[in-house]
Amino acid sequence: MQEAPLVGIIMGSDSDLPVMSAAAEVMEEFNVSYELAVMSAHRTPEKVEQYARTAAARGLRVIIAGAGGAAHLAGVAAAYTELPVIGVPILSKALAGADSLYSMVQMPSGVPVAAVAINGAKNAGLLAVQILATADEALRKQMISYKDNLRQQVEERAERLSALGWRAYLAAKE
Amino acid sequence: MQEAPLVGIIMGSDSDLPVMSAAAEVMEEFNVSYELAVMSAHRTPEKVEQYARTAAARGLRVIIAGAGGAAHLAGVAAAYTELPVIGVPILSKALAGADSLYSMVQMPSGVPVAAVAINGAKNAGLLAVQILATADEALRKQMISYKDNLRQQVEERAERLSALGWRAYLAAKE
Amino acid sequence: MQEAPLVGIIMGSDSDLPVMSAAAEVMEEFNVSYELAVMSAHRTPEKVEQYARTAAARGLRVIIAGAGGAAHLAGVAAAYTELPVIGVPILSKALAGADSLYSMVQMPSGVPVAAVAINGAKNAGLLAVQILATADEALRKQMISYKDNLRQQVEERAERLSALGWRAYLAAKE
Amino acid sequence: MQEAPLVGIIMGSDSDLPVMSAAAEVMEEFNVSYELAVMSAHRTPEKVEQYARTAAARGLRVIIAGAGGAAHLAGVAAAYTELPVIGVPILSKALAGADSLYSMVQMPSGVPVAAVAINGAKNAGLLAVQILATADEALRKQMISYKDNLRQQVEERAERLSALGWRAYLAAKE
Amino acid sequence: MQEAPLVGIIMGSDSDLPVMSAAAEVMEEFNVSYELAVMSAHRTPEKVEQYARTAAARGLRVIIAGAGGAAHLAGVAAAYTELPVIGVPILSKALAGADSLYSMVQMPSGVPVAAVAINGAKNAGLLAVQILATADEALRKQMISYKDNLRQQVEERAERLSALGWRAYLAAKE
Amino acid sequence: MQEAPLVGIIMGSDSDLPVMSAAAEVMEEFNVSYELAVMSAHRTPEKVEQYARTAAARGLRVIIAGAGGAAHLAGVAAAYTELPVIGVPILSKALAGADSLYSMVQMPSGVPVAAVAINGAKNAGLLAVQILATADEALRKQMISYKDNLRQQVEERAERLSALGWRAYLAAKE
Amino acid sequence: MQEAPLVGIIMGSDSDLPVMSAAAEVMEEFNVSYELAVMSAHRTPEKVEQYARTAAARGLRVIIAGAGGAAHLAGVAAAYTELPVIGVPILSKALAGADSLYSMVQMPSGVPVAAVAINGAKNAGLLAVQILATADEALRKQMISYKDNLRQQVEERAERLSALGWRAYLAAKE
Amino acid sequence: MQEAPLVGIIMGSDSDLPVMSAAAEVMEEFNVSYELAVMSAHRTPEKVEQYARTAAARGLRVIIAGAGGAAHLAGVAAAYTELPVIGVPILSKALAGADSLYSMVQMPSGVPVAAVAINGAKNAGLLAVQILATADEALRKQMISYKDNLRQQVEERAERLSALGWRAYLAAKE
Repeated sequence: MQEAPLVGIIMGSDSDLPVMSAAAEVMEEFNVSYELAVMSAHRTPEKVEQYARTAAARGLRVIIAGAGGAAHLAGVAAAYTELPVIGVPILSKALAGADSLYSMVQMPSGVPVAAVAINGAKNAGLLAVQILATADEALRKQMISYKDNLRQQVEERAERLSALGWRAYLAAKE
Repeated sequence: MQEAPLVGIIMGSDSDLPVMSAAAEVMEEFNVSYELAVMSAHRTPEKVEQYARTAAARGLRVIIAGAGGAAHLAGVAAAYTELPVIGVPILSKALAGADSLYSMVQMPSGVPVAAVAINGAKNAGLLAVQILATADEALRKQMISYKDNLRQQVEERAERLSALGWRAYLAAKE
Repeated sequence: MQEAPLVGIIMGSDSDLPVMSAAAEVMEEFNVSYELAVMSAHRTPEKVEQYARTAAARGLRVIIAGAGGAAHLAGVAAAYTELPVIGVPILSKALAGADSLYSMVQMPSGVPVAAVAINGAKNAGLLAVQILATADEALRKQMISYKDNLRQQVEERAERLSALGWRAYLAAKE
Repeated sequence: MQEAPLVGIIMGSDSDLPVMSAAAEVMEEFNVSYELAVMSAHRTPEKVEQYARTAAARGLRVIIAGAGGAAHLAGVAAAYTELPVIGVPILSKALAGADSLYSMVQMPSGVPVAAVAINGAKNAGLLAVQILATADEALRKQMISYKDNLRQQVEERAERLSALGWRAYLAAKE
Repeated sequence: MQEAPLVGIIMGSDSDLPVMSAAAEVMEEFNVSYELAVMSAHRTPEKVEQYARTAAARGLRVIIAGAGGAAHLAGVAAAYTELPVIGVPILSKALAGADSLYSMVQMPSGVPVAAVAINGAKNAGLLAVQILATADEALRKQMISYKDNLRQQVEERAERLSALGWRAYLAAKE
Repeated sequence: MQEAPLVGIIMGSDSDLPVMSAAAEVMEEFNVSYELAVMSAHRTPEKVEQYARTAAARGLRVIIAGAGGAAHLAGVAAAYTELPVIGVPILSKALAGADSLYSMVQMPSGVPVAAVAINGAKNAGLLAVQILATADEALRKQMISYKDNLRQQVEERAERLSALGWRAYLAAKE
Repeated sequence: MQEAPLVGIIMGSDSDLPVMSAAAEVMEEFNVSYELAVMSAHRTPEKVEQYARTAAARGLRVIIAGAGGAAHLAGVAAAYTELPVIGVPILSKALAGADSLYSMVQMPSGVPVAAVAINGAKNAGLLAVQILATADEALRKQMISYKDNLRQQVEERAERLSALGWRAYLAAKE
Repeated sequence: MQEAPLVGIIMGSDSDLPVMSAAAEVMEEFNVSYELAVMSAHRTPEKVEQYARTAAARGLRVIIAGAGGAAHLAGVAAAYTELPVIGVPILSKALAGADSLYSMVQMPSGVPVAAVAINGAKNAGLLAVQILATADEALRKQMISYKDNLRQQVEERAERLSALGWRAYLAAKE
């Protein structure tokens, strides 16, 4: 993280870290500088405001925000910045995550949030890379390689399954 | 509204006014001074922040906030004030209002919002009066009268229905 | 609890106590006198009626009611009192808590219940304090301190996370 | 309605009458004496209590209760009577009726409500007749005839459809 | 079970027995003769048909049917009998029980099923007793006693909680 | 319909005909002989039983069953036949069609129903054709043509949109 | 699997194999040749395309596709083949499987998918057999035997339950 | 549209155009070159594949995809391109749009889609602009102005409401 970070990963509580760390891992895999911080739209709203308001000036290009329940963090950040904000709805105990998803994705006209799947922090990271890659040819090529790797992994498993037969494959996994 | 207002009624858009005006009508019925304003957690976040932050000092005792979709207004107001905040989830076109309800009611520990029914602005007004009445004996008595009136209205209709029989009652309503 | 209690915490079953005790802890933290009782809208309806009907006269200012499933306790209490009633929907095994939430929050015009999050007993306690604080300057200041503390706790964790880096922070938590 | 009524049909508001009248029509079709009244679990709770508490002594055998939103009427009636209580969840504007259904059907152990379909007042009436028919051979035979009639109606329509072909049948209906 | 049974308890699979046995226990508690059987609307439809078709003639007065998923058992039984049919939706792994509930309760006009709560077999038993009690004064008195007992149990726990205080009460339960 | 029909289209009520006729139109488009009938799993269960039980012997190869609410028709038919049964959940007024969908699709192990989209009668027809086409090369080729046509229609509209520009295209549609 | 396979079982990830293997077991039970492969609509879309496009030519008659979350596999396969495609929605961690179900079943006009229950891979297998049996008398008879076996199993358990009584039966199962 | 387009707006059917045109209007407002086309993941899958596969090479930087029901278009496009794909779930008649939302947002790890609100095509357009603006200082400034304008519009309406009072304001709107 020596460079000025391009991606800011924020989350409403440190209890969200086990989910949200997947976004950080993507940044490291793609060698994209990032910063990660805990701040709450409800408990430390000034910090969120200041963070979002100064984000572009500090060099950030994308913000990833993870939160659960009445998950306002992404929307509040989006209110204070012109940068793209990616929202990660975090699975809550009640309502099967529908609360987190709906409070992130159903934003009013004029202030978008880019929502990914419930607990989809890895995809949030990849989406941030894709966004940066729209203006970074090297990164775009890395993304193409990444998708090739994904494909290969699925194909290797598929071949192994084909070679072993499903019974042996299942037994080997257990 | 000559007095310093005790209740602030805010909403995310002027399209919420047809629903939220019911809260204002309650204030007028109970002679409780109030103010009503449009401000958006996403389009005019600074205004919401300033409004909520100065609310107590300006003499407000309760805030009523109505919004739809990813309805953050009540939660954001609650983040900036120690006053009780009542949330009115407003029915949106998709998801049958579940989005508005969930984003209002599922607040994290430490920052409560008092949610009422979807489109329940009248009840939000009554709840605000009940809150003020906890320290205002005259208002508490007004509330008792109000509930007596409610009861009487239901009873009058019940008697009329009983007297007419349901067929005639239904016919008379049409 | 030597003083006449200001807040009544009721719940439909003693199985709700592990959730609802969080509301009592808030009362103790704020030095607000309270009482706590089990009574069921369906199994001991007379007790609920009597409790709610006499609540204001006995000096209560706010009622907190927790229940699950077809959670009628808060609504039934609200029917018999002019005091503000806060409802805590308790997570049930089926339907992911939607049943408890909907039966608490969707109250008809004229009889509001202030619903908090599913299992949100702590927030119910804080909301009760906020309501009392509308007429109690000392309590209002305590609430301001409480919110400052909350903020500090989040900030301390945020700083620790920032100092350690997320990998070490996560490792330390496990 | 000259006889002492056997079935009590109650509803939370006169706005429920267009739905609930279908239950009354069933009573008339089966010549079962009934009474119909409006009373609200939240606005006139004493009336509901008194109604339910005295229902058995007044000769009622079954209570049908219709309500919408946080539909507590059936549950509250069930709390005060040992008679079977049939609940009719009434479609509300938000949440597609799930609120009405869940607050009626998810009753706690010890206090059942027999829920029928959303807006299913006709079936509530038929269920009441079936209950009375468990001890009334004549009524049981009437119910058998009723079901035979139902069958015949479906069969007649089926035959007409078969005779006309679906295109002509559809055209004739329009 | 020496007497001819009055209540038939059926379920779609023996995996439903741990839930449905609660209905049988109610029968035994009230000394109501009953029979219990496994039969599937989908795997043994003829048996369900024959069971329901002959139920009244064999002396049954009420049928209780429990099933999960696309829970057709209660509806199919209701199609073949004029007796009241009580449906117990059984919690399934997916959809949080909404599938079981909806397939039981949303019956078409003319063929009611009396649905109780998800997994509410005990209440199904009590409802069956209430139905029989509409024509059995002794059973009606037993039901009154049962409800008194329920009340007392809640009250005893309430008193114990009141005497111990909630901290000690919670500690004693663990 | 001179030939012995290969596909049976059944529905629970003649009110389902406006939706279900789309399946019949597919049969005609593909020159597949079919029959169409109204029969209710709840009002005319014997007819459904007899229909399903004799379906294979009468030469039917596929059954399409449409119903709404607690939509048991497809499941009940499937219980009595070894033929593939396609279920069309029909949109009901409450619950946004989730009741119809869940009661059709969540069938227990051993007795499948092939569910298509809510109100998806046209797709039910196409699926029936696809099933027949697994053993009918001519029909398989017709299906390939059909899909080519679909593609061409989308492409023609796409070209027209491209040629006109979206503003003119939209204006032309109004 | 020496013969050219008639049924192709595909799934989006090898983590779906524990669920999807039930479909393979049905194939083996009915001696229907099959193949099983992992391929992802999102990670290896070309493979899915190629698989589906060549399926009919390679002799496949039915495709079974299992996937979870935004479960596109069945729909994408259906887009490229004229064969019937059976979709198995796989239970995901969030949203109780509603996401998997809705993305499989709500296909647009023209491109059907035959959805079975969430995690219903066994039924998918049986449905595939039923489809093949529409043109294979021996297989149709096997299916009739299978259903007879199912019936007998339920009946044997039912008899055992009847002989033991439910208490002993439950005890024996534990 | 003289320049090579930077943003591709695609939709599954021309019936989606009234919703999706809002994204095109945003492009025009920001002077961002775009193209708009109808193509279906299910009816013209090859076109979607080719479109997505060649998108980056043709100079596109962002794809916006709108679809309803089992809305696979965005996910399928994302499978074939390394560009960021924004998904617009379009409100369908059944399930209140939950089907469209879930099939767009719940993408598996490795292949993100950026979902916006149901029918949120305008926000999809704004998000596309924000993405382009991460590498285009002029566009970033335009976005800042846009958000200022939004703020001013809300404030102007707020002032007008404040000046007129809510009754006059409402009357003027009607």
